[in-house]
Amino acid sequence: MEKDLRYVELFEIYQGLLTDRQRELFRSHYYYDLSLSEIAEPDGNTRQNVYMAIKKVKTKLDEYENLLKIHSKNQKLKQVAENLNGTSENVAKEILDIIRE
Amino acid sequence: MEKDLRYVELFEIYQGLLTDRQRELFRSHYYYDLSLSEIAEPDGNTRQNVYMAIKKVKTKLDEYENLLKIHSKNQKLKQVAENLNGTSENVAKEILDIIRE
Repeated sequence: MEKDLRYVELFEIYQGLLTDRQRELFRSHYYYDLSLSEIAEPDGNTRQNVYMAIKKVKTKLDEYENLLKIHSKNQKLKQVAENLNGTSENVAKEILDIIRE
Repeated sequence: MEKDLRYVELFEIYQGLLTDRQRELFRSHYYYDLSLSEIAEPDGNTRQNVYMAIKKVKTKLDEYENLLKIHSKNQKLKQVAENLNGTSENVAKEILDIIRE
């Protein structure tokens, strides 16, 4: 399973919309770097089930981004802030603070 | 039922996370200005049921905003854009375009 930074960024934005179980699965794999088997075994689950469950979380994250576009808007705002550096650094910082809060 | 502009703004942001039925109810009351009875009657529903259903939609919208804060961040970014008017109008427009897209 490809560990895409984009999904970590989407997770950071949309994790509140996931269930506890979905958050736990995602963190185990993407943050604590556990293999699918390592995640599956303690629960007596199968590697394939864990794979499908994590795939479902990623699909959810893509759906939320398609609906709300927070990630894409944040990227554009970061670009605006970057272009302001050198001329209006305070404003650039203000924009980045709003995105990150 | 108080027809708060804030809920219309939240609806415009988060409607994609609602069900078709929830969207329909909200639009009937807040956009087409139908009374609770007018919404209830064609479906053989009660005024009270419609009231509760719309209240639930508003609770959902509040929950999404608490989790994702898009509305609050947009307000802050609009303020940044407003402060840029007069000095960097292009950048102000750029920020507003990103929020609105």
